[in-house]
Amino acid sequence: MSNQIEEFNAYRSKMNEKLLADNNKIIKRIFNLDTNAYAAGALDVKTKELLGLVASAVLRCDDCVKYHLESSYNQGASKEEIMETLGIATLVGGTIVVPHLRRAYEYWEELENQ
Amino acid sequence: MSNQIEEFNAYRSKMNEKLLADNNKIIKRIFNLDTNAYAAGALDVKTKELLGLVASAVLRCDDCVKYHLESSYNQGASKEEIMETLGIATLVGGTIVVPHLRRAYEYWEELENQ
Amino acid sequence: MSNQIEEFNAYRSKMNEKLLADNNKIIKRIFNLDTNAYAAGALDVKTKELLGLVASAVLRCDDCVKYHLESSYNQGASKEEIMETLGIATLVGGTIVVPHLRRAYEYWEELENQ
Amino acid sequence: MSNQIEEFNAYRSKMNEKLLADNNKIIKRIFNLDTNAYAAGALDVKTKELLGLVASAVLRCDDCVKYHLESSYNQGASKEEIMETLGIATLVGGTIVVPHLRRAYEYWEELENQ
Amino acid sequence: MSNQIEEFNAYRSKMNEKLLADNNKIIKRIFNLDTNAYAAGALDVKTKELLGLVASAVLRCDDCVKYHLESSYNQGASKEEIMETLGIATLVGGTIVVPHLRRAYEYWEELENQ
Amino acid sequence: MSNQIEEFNAYRSKMNEKLLADNNKIIKRIFNLDTNAYAAGALDVKTKELLGLVASAVLRCDDCVKYHLESSYNQGASKEEIMETLGIATLVGGTIVVPHLRRAYEYWEELENQ
Repeated sequence: MSNQIEEFNAYRSKMNEKLLADNNKIIKRIFNLDTNAYAAGALDVKTKELLGLVASAVLRCDDCVKYHLESSYNQGASKEEIMETLGIATLVGGTIVVPHLRRAYEYWEELENQ
Repeated sequence: MSNQIEEFNAYRSKMNEKLLADNNKIIKRIFNLDTNAYAAGALDVKTKELLGLVASAVLRCDDCVKYHLESSYNQGASKEEIMETLGIATLVGGTIVVPHLRRAYEYWEELENQ
Repeated sequence: MSNQIEEFNAYRSKMNEKLLADNNKIIKRIFNLDTNAYAAGALDVKTKELLGLVASAVLRCDDCVKYHLESSYNQGASKEEIMETLGIATLVGGTIVVPHLRRAYEYWEELENQ
Repeated sequence: MSNQIEEFNAYRSKMNEKLLADNNKIIKRIFNLDTNAYAAGALDVKTKELLGLVASAVLRCDDCVKYHLESSYNQGASKEEIMETLGIATLVGGTIVVPHLRRAYEYWEELENQ
Repeated sequence: MSNQIEEFNAYRSKMNEKLLADNNKIIKRIFNLDTNAYAAGALDVKTKELLGLVASAVLRCDDCVKYHLESSYNQGASKEEIMETLGIATLVGGTIVVPHLRRAYEYWEELENQ
Repeated sequence: MSNQIEEFNAYRSKMNEKLLADNNKIIKRIFNLDTNAYAAGALDVKTKELLGLVASAVLRCDDCVKYHLESSYNQGASKEEIMETLGIATLVGGTIVVPHLRRAYEYWEELENQ
């Protein structure tokens, strides 16, 4: 069942390693910022992951949605919290978000069924 | 030949059912609005489907394009009408629409060859 | 009352003239295509203007919306047809279209009050 | 100092009233959904407003950003929470978000200085 | 190794031929413009291909990225030049560009390993 | 004549100072990256500024366009080079780029007339 999760993470890790090994300073620093931005601060990590999720969903980036679904799941986000977040994304971003919503829902099911 | 059409519709139906069963009020209502917005009014259904098609194409949402191609086809839209609609989409949205135009053309061919 | 309309058209004309005088072949041809794409074909001019309007609205381009509102008005589009078109735009493009909807509505009122 | 806030809200209210009076069912229902989506649920109102803020910022909709800044302010969001939210928006959405970040910061200052 | 390149080019050629045979004037002219825009002028061809690449990357169009990667490669662009171009794309367009960056990097590797 | 340039730069500087003084680490680092990304490397500064310009134009960010027009001007870019860059932007991004093209042309004129 968790095929999709494994495949996504394997490809993501493999290519990230290559990109970081390539040594382009701008890209390396953006990757580094990405780690810092979701660390606990005035807002807790789960809230930040939900912020990353809604931003990814309205920008219709399936891979980014998957990444933040998984991080949100690991932070203990409930399905209701995820659905309210994706509901806001669909309202703000419109029905063109719906195909991404379908794929997000399927990915969340896989996370729960692991 | 109509493999792509069947696959698209099967996945779409399966996931829409799950999303509606999940009972998130916002998402349910957006799905409901989606049905109402393309019903006959001051504009007829075919014109509204073409409006949905051009909006989907400039926003580069392949699944939305497929959906409106099929509804337009069912409303009796001709290939010339579809191509003029997609021509406007490509002009307004630019050459980044072209890859979606290729896939739209292929999907339309499958609709005609069913 | 029609201040906004005059201002928009005056600036648009002035800058278009300069851009065309500048003699960049690509830009000149795109301007030329823009004239052709909305000419009568399998679809009539009014329908094509509504297609241009919905595309402009979901891409949130106020100037493009104004332009197609005026052309649609000149083609005899009714307020109901405009509102149904903008309703589809808001549903497909989401609530981020709403600020543009407010400005579109105001511009349409000015067109009617000329 | 709060000129910008008053002007924004006055125009927004005036045009929303007109849009609702116009009686287009789709637009009315989307306005209605907008009220429901940010009501307390599994997530509290402040978190939902921050979700609306980050979505608005990455989609680069200044009016939407202003609206959610004001609602977040009214929900007691701190400047640090706002800045962390906008930091995520700038990272996810890139440096094209920066001009909107400048205007958001200015608007927040006005909210604090009312 | 060059499977991805062959597949991409085969599908692209097949569908472009069909689209051109379909005889929609707007689409034909846009295809024609696409050839002219990247021809040598005040800027050389390689620079123009890099401009096409960065535009494609920030607009997150994988097929367009592949196309310009291949043209840039044929114009003798070095990996460092490609990475600096994609670094700017990722900074300007934000972390939602990163999944496209991963796929671009993979495609470039295939171009080098042909 | 150079009013627009002065106003843009004054507001930009004032707000950037405030944003940097605010001390949000993510935002500060993104600002810092922005300086590094356009420094000479495998590509020269002028080419990088043109890359920044085309990315800003297709993403339809007027302030970003102004910024890169000014930097390109300072790097000795000719009007022909700017127009070819903006021509590619208009082709790739479509006619919704045209209103931004008009404003870009006006800003370039002001830069030349300073």
